[in-house]
Amino acid sequence: MGKVRVDLNISLDGYATTTDQTPEDPIGQDWNRLTATYVGTRTFRERVLGQTGKGTTGLDNDYAAEYFENVGAEVMGAGMFGLHDHPNDPDWQGWWGDTPPFGFPVYVLTHEDRPTLKMEGGTTFHFVQSSIEDALERAKEDAGDLDVRVGGGVSLVRSYLAAGLVDRLHVAVVPILLGRGQNLWADLREFERGYKVTTEAAPSGVVHVTFAR
Amino acid sequence: MGKVRVDLNISLDGYATTTDQTPEDPIGQDWNRLTATYVGTRTFRERVLGQTGKGTTGLDNDYAAEYFENVGAEVMGAGMFGLHDHPNDPDWQGWWGDTPPFGFPVYVLTHEDRPTLKMEGGTTFHFVQSSIEDALERAKEDAGDLDVRVGGGVSLVRSYLAAGLVDRLHVAVVPILLGRGQNLWADLREFERGYKVTTEAAPSGVVHVTFAR
Repeated sequence: MGKVRVDLNISLDGYATTTDQTPEDPIGQDWNRLTATYVGTRTFRERVLGQTGKGTTGLDNDYAAEYFENVGAEVMGAGMFGLHDHPNDPDWQGWWGDTPPFGFPVYVLTHEDRPTLKMEGGTTFHFVQSSIEDALERAKEDAGDLDVRVGGGVSLVRSYLAAGLVDRLHVAVVPILLGRGQNLWADLREFERGYKVTTEAAPSGVVHVTFAR
Repeated sequence: MGKVRVDLNISLDGYATTTDQTPEDPIGQDWNRLTATYVGTRTFRERVLGQTGKGTTGLDNDYAAEYFENVGAEVMGAGMFGLHDHPNDPDWQGWWGDTPPFGFPVYVLTHEDRPTLKMEGGTTFHFVQSSIEDALERAKEDAGDLDVRVGGGVSLVRSYLAAGLVDRLHVAVVPILLGRGQNLWADLREFERGYKVTTEAAPSGVVHVTFAR
């Protein structure tokens, strides 16, 4: 039986989202600062950008590689798929492109009733109006012995964490203070109970904290 | 010229104070969890508890030792001296004992007008009704080439951090989630600008983050 996993980049003050997007800079400088180390890894360059032989190796890359390993299905929120920007548009296929970088079933939690979307490369998006528990059960069935990843966004991740449904949480803590956004840790007092917590600091300054059970 | 330094234990979610004190347990379990690694170091055992040859060595102890080195004066808030529990009591000499573990001038920021208190072991408490800047200037004059420590509490530390008056902030991030208390990081967006930030993880799981300029 696989595990239920979450991986996130967060700031030292716990923020997993950024708020400085503008029409001219839709990603924002804060997001670039938050993800710079991750984006710079060899794994990200190869798996997401399709570049070979580029990017950093070492501890940050080891954790980046783990993110892609042994996953058989994913659960994500409507915003992560891209429904918030294109509500009730039946032609919109999300912003993950023609060949999304998943290659397995993805359950998108939404109140929209949309038909299943089968993409190139093995990714199938299922749109589910059920509870987070039901969506996870369906993803687990698909994943079999492999893990299920709760991809995001942060509010969905926080729901799964608060419900005690996550077996492994890895956060890459980036030593910057964002001061605003969605805080991963809000109302998660004593989340560490029942988990083994490990910490590792990379030469980049990023600290990898893992809660595992 | 010395540096202005701050050292704190904080939880992974940024809390530097705890809230579970009761009349039966005036320190509280959270404080014990937050400070367990620090209290377990050889330095703490020797310098604060007067025990010799006990406690951990290694990275956590190295940072604990640094806390005591090269300090020539300290600034602290009224609560840390002990005035909040004994307001307007001229006989109260604080809760640091007859021989406080400082051995140098300590400036206590308070609205109470109290005479200077000269204790055994070289500690002199000065009670000042001035601004945080004035108190720091007086401490710097006393410290000379040595450092000035802003000892606490957290709200005073946050005032000094926000005012840009701290040269070196070391936090021992303990991998527990307290979920409540005073958050060190609140409203300190981009505090890292102008500092070199380093991170080190100890085998205990505690992560040492240092902002230095």
